[in-house]
Amino acid sequence: MNQPAKRWPVRIERRMRWDVIETPDLFAPDSTQLLRYGRPDARRRFVVVDANVLALHGDRIRAWFRHHNLNARIVECPAGEARKNPQTWLHLARRLDEFPIHRRAEPVIAIGGGVLTDVVGFLAATYRRGIPHIKVPTTLMGYIDAALGIKNGVSFNDRKNRLGSFEPPLAVLLDSRFLATQSRRHLLDGVAEILKLATVCDAELFEQLEKHGPACINNHFSGPHGAGILNRAIDGMLAELVPNMYEDRLARAVDFGHTFSYGLETRHPRRLLHGEAVLLDMLVSVAVAQRRHLLSAAGAERFFSLVERLDMQPDLALLDADLMWQSLLDRVEHRDGRQNVPLPDAIGRCVFVNDIRRRELADAIPVLRSRMDTNNEPALEC
Amino acid sequence: MNQPAKRWPVRIERRMRWDVIETPDLFAPDSTQLLRYGRPDARRRFVVVDANVLALHGDRIRAWFRHHNLNARIVECPAGEARKNPQTWLHLARRLDEFPIHRRAEPVIAIGGGVLTDVVGFLAATYRRGIPHIKVPTTLMGYIDAALGIKNGVSFNDRKNRLGSFEPPLAVLLDSRFLATQSRRHLLDGVAEILKLATVCDAELFEQLEKHGPACINNHFSGPHGAGILNRAIDGMLAELVPNMYEDRLARAVDFGHTFSYGLETRHPRRLLHGEAVLLDMLVSVAVAQRRHLLSAAGAERFFSLVERLDMQPDLALLDADLMWQSLLDRVEHRDGRQNVPLPDAIGRCVFVNDIRRRELADAIPVLRSRMDTNNEPALEC
Repeated sequence: MNQPAKRWPVRIERRMRWDVIETPDLFAPDSTQLLRYGRPDARRRFVVVDANVLALHGDRIRAWFRHHNLNARIVECPAGEARKNPQTWLHLARRLDEFPIHRRAEPVIAIGGGVLTDVVGFLAATYRRGIPHIKVPTTLMGYIDAALGIKNGVSFNDRKNRLGSFEPPLAVLLDSRFLATQSRRHLLDGVAEILKLATVCDAELFEQLEKHGPACINNHFSGPHGAGILNRAIDGMLAELVPNMYEDRLARAVDFGHTFSYGLETRHPRRLLHGEAVLLDMLVSVAVAQRRHLLSAAGAERFFSLVERLDMQPDLALLDADLMWQSLLDRVEHRDGRQNVPLPDAIGRCVFVNDIRRRELADAIPVLRSRMDTNNEPALEC
Repeated sequence: MNQPAKRWPVRIERRMRWDVIETPDLFAPDSTQLLRYGRPDARRRFVVVDANVLALHGDRIRAWFRHHNLNARIVECPAGEARKNPQTWLHLARRLDEFPIHRRAEPVIAIGGGVLTDVVGFLAATYRRGIPHIKVPTTLMGYIDAALGIKNGVSFNDRKNRLGSFEPPLAVLLDSRFLATQSRRHLLDGVAEILKLATVCDAELFEQLEKHGPACINNHFSGPHGAGILNRAIDGMLAELVPNMYEDRLARAVDFGHTFSYGLETRHPRRLLHGEAVLLDMLVSVAVAQRRHLLSAAGAERFFSLVERLDMQPDLALLDADLMWQSLLDRVEHRDGRQNVPLPDAIGRCVFVNDIRRRELADAIPVLRSRMDTNNEPALEC
């Protein structure tokens, strides 16, 4: 009695919604924004805070939870890429087991930079197969980039972010007060991502950086021009991310600066912040685009000049054509067999190329060095 | 210049589709089903196979990949709950790094029981934030239960499946030939889940088990009645799972037998298979339902008799009211503060209760023991 083979089609649809919200002074005693999440009668909160942030803002954060009668387990998490690994993730899972929460009613809260929100995002995505979480970025990199998407993860086997997932948050709460306590170097780390977006997606944002960038960096984006740049960067970033949240399309403008940087930051984890590696990648990419006559000399010059105006001081000595070529090959696997390298064809626009050769990278590096060295002559600064 | 705080609403929708397909003799040389997935020019496959399955069917599986010119890295994975941990997951990630695949074009293939498809599902969900995977269950438990859903995970910190996620597969391919080589004990492990579904969702399936269950177990579900029971179990399981794939509702009929079993199998990992723990839980649940007059004495008796007819031999000595109560408390966290315990109010139906007391468990155990012991008197077997 042979029956025809059976087939059960499964079709599902999942709707997800959350808000990214500017919440100035989130931990002012009378601020109620954080009270809006979780079941009102469920009073436990597992709160993971970056160690640097805890040192600077811990008293204020603890006082807020006490004031609102929430039983918060504040867990300090060391910052830095070196701690973005499976061990940190498992450590947090063990701490969460010790302090049980109700699976859906008591959101985990992540307060810190991109590394911290990535690790806690992965914890939330995987603990009991998913618990709600709220992201509170405290660095410029988190504020305008890392905390806005739904990507999370940890590094593994010498590969950045090799293990991770896509996990929507319950909310992203943006409090720019945290930026006031960032070092200049870490601010510039985030500026690199704003510069990225401006260069490939938003000529008007690029102009704002030209006009107001140096002053905004000096006052930690606390004035109206700073707020304007931050909001415009968030507008642009979300416009790129939202229609392609799960990266169904692997050609992404926001990958500008994220092709060669991968190898550079993996090789030099102690010398390069993520944004610093992205900046090096963008410089090489712009030089390649110019040599291909894809981007005009004037366009490339505007980019190089802005990097100088913002005083970003890229460490060009770290550029290495072999390393960058290997990094591109890995990205080809990641982009499913295609290079999909975004290159600007004008300021504020980009195209995707799939035929970059090793030779182009090797040729671009000395040209770039001579351009940046000439104008950065120490003698000129005296 | 104070501007009103800004808010960016993010709304996304994700559609997912895959098929569960009966594919008799999937690894016959001329079978082409597995060729339908992945990009035709992408010829690499990372294939994780349960060690027992590899010993029994390895030659045939390897020959199939060779015959079809696919460059398959066959990775043997030891079976058993004890290996369902973060170490196994990281080991597989490292092996996958050594054998790179294109991120979207070359699906990972998992061939094995529920433990294996759970671990490989978690690998696929998290490697580079998600790569496609195909599940080929080789045990009855996988065939009618574990491989049908999208839940995956590993155990951690003495807690079963504490870390995991929801990850839709590219396809689930069902080849009942694998069931022929299962031991009787492992077949019965899966029968417990069929019995579960029948008891709370499908009176007709319950009747089929009464009529044909013993014969189907003897011939490893290879006849028409076996196929009928398997297909009906899959129909019922998918009908329960699909509308609630991400468990947005935490009151789930398929959780019948999965409240007290959690503590039992965690305490006795070497003595109890998952389905054996589920069976003990169901027996206690039915006894509780009867003592509450929720289920009639006749209904309870039908359940107990079927367990005997199927010769499932539950080890009632392992029942422990304290352990089961602790297990319920953990499930309350998992079910977000409510017990949500499914109890049958007739054969083929259930209701959810939220007021089970420790005392009821303690009272039900001796009643159950005396019922099952009476009819299982060794003397009767002589």
